[in-house]
Amino acid sequence: MQEGCDPIARMALQLSRLPGIGQKSAQRLAYHIAAMPQEQVKELAAALWQGRKALRFCALCGNYTQEEYCPICADEKRHTGQICVVRDARDVAAMERMRDFKGLYHVLGGTLSPMDHVGPEDIRIKELLTRLSTETVNEIILATNPDIEGEATAAYLARLIKPMGVKVTRIAHGVPVGSDLEYADEVTLAKAMEGRREL
Amino acid sequence: MQEGCDPIARMALQLSRLPGIGQKSAQRLAYHIAAMPQEQVKELAAALWQGRKALRFCALCGNYTQEEYCPICADEKRHTGQICVVRDARDVAAMERMRDFKGLYHVLGGTLSPMDHVGPEDIRIKELLTRLSTETVNEIILATNPDIEGEATAAYLARLIKPMGVKVTRIAHGVPVGSDLEYADEVTLAKAMEGRREL
Repeated sequence: MQEGCDPIARMALQLSRLPGIGQKSAQRLAYHIAAMPQEQVKELAAALWQGRKALRFCALCGNYTQEEYCPICADEKRHTGQICVVRDARDVAAMERMRDFKGLYHVLGGTLSPMDHVGPEDIRIKELLTRLSTETVNEIILATNPDIEGEATAAYLARLIKPMGVKVTRIAHGVPVGSDLEYADEVTLAKAMEGRREL
Repeated sequence: MQEGCDPIARMALQLSRLPGIGQKSAQRLAYHIAAMPQEQVKELAAALWQGRKALRFCALCGNYTQEEYCPICADEKRHTGQICVVRDARDVAAMERMRDFKGLYHVLGGTLSPMDHVGPEDIRIKELLTRLSTETVNEIILATNPDIEGEATAAYLARLIKPMGVKVTRIAHGVPVGSDLEYADEVTLAKAMEGRREL
């Protein structure tokens, strides 16, 4: 006799493959789903499978979309002169939550990481250069993560794009709003001092 | 412009309805699923929906099963004289993990809880009494949780079943194996003292 019933074990196995869901929580979730009304489970499964099937990459920025172009690239009200370069689609969502940036995005789909054998040809750098040569771009905002790979990617892109006469900026690093200086690490504090501005 | 792309928002909404998955983790999972190979998402969705559809309740014990009787009730090697009464199917799986108990189970599908308007007629007590009158049962082991509802349910069942001449036992409460006395709460310690045995 295996643990639990077969379909439940199969649910748990599949769920445990998702990030952040261990064996214990996968089993707990499986039992919860077993007890859910059939209609709700159908909706859940359909949202996952139909959703995944409907998704493709925006032909311009590489963000997820259902059409050829994502809603942001297709929006005529966005300023086409600014392109914010981010690592992945998740970061586009994070920036959009700010409701402040009106330009376009470019999703790299990763960051340079020699350790993981990710080179410039493995992320969407060529596509960015193509955009620079076909669109009228005034500013490239490098918004990769403030970690080693993100910084390396930003430095690489800056070196590549600056000679093309386009303004290249990097998002500011510093102490997060609402946080406590006491808990900020040294590197963040150093960056915050370095980036200080006159009031 | 809504946060992220529609299918991803729909995935996240559905996932956030599961227990222990907040809005943030739901969105993280949705983006992960968006990046998964289609085939794997199909497997995940199929496991959930096909699994849920295949599940029914065992006609005897109330555990989840695909057939009329669950694998445990259908197993002729199990001792039919002992019935272990548990709150839900999850508890059957926990007991089975022990690989020690060879009797049968009875899943109540809940515990008595006047606060939540759960009375004796709302859980599978009638079915348990039917089993007692049709099967030859020597012992009823009450393995509901050691919380207020579980204890109340065990007490209620004991009062109901004892007059029928069936031996009724309750699983032991005490300090969990491998734990530290220092961290055990007073009630558990009191139960451990109360249930002490001569060596």
